[in-house]
Amino acid sequence: MASLTFTPEMLAAARELVGPHVHHTPVMHSRLLDQLAGAPLFFKCENFQRGGSYKLRGATHALLRLQEQAPVPAVVTHSSGNFAQALSVAAQAVGIPAHIVMPENAPAVKKAAVHTYGGRITECAPTLEAREDAAARISEETGAVFIHPSNDPMVMLGQGTACAELLEEVPDLECVVAPVGGGGLLGGTALACTFTDNACEPIGAEPLRVDDAYRSLQSGRIESNSRTDTVADGLRTVLGSHTFPVLKQYVNTIIRVEEAEIITAMRLVWERMKIVIEPSSAVALAAVLKDPGYIGGRKTGIIVSGGNVDLGKLPF
Amino acid sequence: MASLTFTPEMLAAARELVGPHVHHTPVMHSRLLDQLAGAPLFFKCENFQRGGSYKLRGATHALLRLQEQAPVPAVVTHSSGNFAQALSVAAQAVGIPAHIVMPENAPAVKKAAVHTYGGRITECAPTLEAREDAAARISEETGAVFIHPSNDPMVMLGQGTACAELLEEVPDLECVVAPVGGGGLLGGTALACTFTDNACEPIGAEPLRVDDAYRSLQSGRIESNSRTDTVADGLRTVLGSHTFPVLKQYVNTIIRVEEAEIITAMRLVWERMKIVIEPSSAVALAAVLKDPGYIGGRKTGIIVSGGNVDLGKLPF
Repeated sequence: MASLTFTPEMLAAARELVGPHVHHTPVMHSRLLDQLAGAPLFFKCENFQRGGSYKLRGATHALLRLQEQAPVPAVVTHSSGNFAQALSVAAQAVGIPAHIVMPENAPAVKKAAVHTYGGRITECAPTLEAREDAAARISEETGAVFIHPSNDPMVMLGQGTACAELLEEVPDLECVVAPVGGGGLLGGTALACTFTDNACEPIGAEPLRVDDAYRSLQSGRIESNSRTDTVADGLRTVLGSHTFPVLKQYVNTIIRVEEAEIITAMRLVWERMKIVIEPSSAVALAAVLKDPGYIGGRKTGIIVSGGNVDLGKLPF
Repeated sequence: MASLTFTPEMLAAARELVGPHVHHTPVMHSRLLDQLAGAPLFFKCENFQRGGSYKLRGATHALLRLQEQAPVPAVVTHSSGNFAQALSVAAQAVGIPAHIVMPENAPAVKKAAVHTYGGRITECAPTLEAREDAAARISEETGAVFIHPSNDPMVMLGQGTACAELLEEVPDLECVVAPVGGGGLLGGTALACTFTDNACEPIGAEPLRVDDAYRSLQSGRIESNSRTDTVADGLRTVLGSHTFPVLKQYVNTIIRVEEAEIITAMRLVWERMKIVIEPSSAVALAAVLKDPGYIGGRKTGIIVSGGNVDLGKLPF
């Protein structure tokens, strides 16, 4: 499949399309974290987004683009994470059902959140094959259109609107750090950085334990992970056919961090900024704190991807 | 001592004086919490204030007023809570020492926070008498001026600037709920509500276990508490000679809440609004959720007093 050529106009159109449906989230900063990082940091707070994460942007954008082409009777995805909630919110907003395929061992708190937003859950065995089979069956039976949580050009463009808003508010950022799992957020962030007037470097942040994106950029092909036991549960997935080419073209640097560094960064943000962020979001700050030499005092944006955590199971 | 007559001009002057020294904190809202409360809620987020609580406002105001009268070589207070940090921040900003008397059994995390902001800690036995003695001795030895954490007209006026900002941003609020411990915040909030052009009712929120303010308004004299074992550790103190008259004059209603209601409200805010608030702040939301009949759908402000919690000792 030939990869799509993205243009600044496509990102601008995405912003216009999703604008009325998503929160324009605030940008926060902290003197103390600036001191620790040796650089001025600007946090784009997608933890305050509807549904609790940036995922609403991509879900909404993909859904609205589909609707431009033909009536969409329903949507379906497989996700046990933030995309499940996001697609439920997006579908509810336009008045169609969202079918969410989740592994039967998904935490009750995640299922409850999907229910809150009107998503319809189908449980399946906890394997990728079972998830894909279930989604295909639902699609056949109900006419629901499948939307992938990350590996979709329209999802990726939607995710890029967070960084586009950040760059509008703080135009002279010199780099922006985003966590990388499936690559939708980092891909969209890289497009937004590339399409801005000033030079702004997109930087990926990844747990060392699931460093498939780092290795993929090195080897030139999509790598997988031999383990998935990171506290950053949103980053256990791997790159896809749509996200990998964008990362290959626009991202030069991915900083990898240890589990303890993720937890320390998460705690710092909770204690000092008084905001609730999830471990996957803390990976970006952990990367900045790990390698101050690489950041080198540059004016740095950080995409705080989400704030969905189980308060009964905190890592500290 | 005749109590001071407060005027709108005094509150306006307090805002002008502290403005350059404190954060103008954001006002947040949440659709889901609106639904639960059956009323539109506007949260004034003093958890984002410097030092982590609204206390900076009163500390700064009292200190700057003192400096208008004569040079202040140093300040001293006794507090194991947010006022200790606040006075340290305020004194550091004007370049004088802050002496903080703390009971020797105060949590290490609180001592560390005071150190962060340059406060000088003197430990004493954990009794009120020992605290007052230690503060008096420091005052004598160093010339430090004593500032009480709540029972001081200038502290109370400073605390009122939070509600004044809120009412400027959301002028048609019909009531504002603030937690009550020593009465500085509720007193200042009541003044701000009284001095606004629209009718706006100040409402106190208090843990049932330390309901001295509720009982004081009933009996007409300052009552004490027979127990202090509430999770809302900032509200264990009682009213004072300066705060009680203001509450008696301007506050008609104090809603009392159970410990479990405080913890539920705190968890709701963390989970749904993605912000870190301390138990004492959750008391205000707990009061709104406890008595929707009393709120009656009115447009309601909530003063989120602070976000200083020990993440290692969460109540959930």
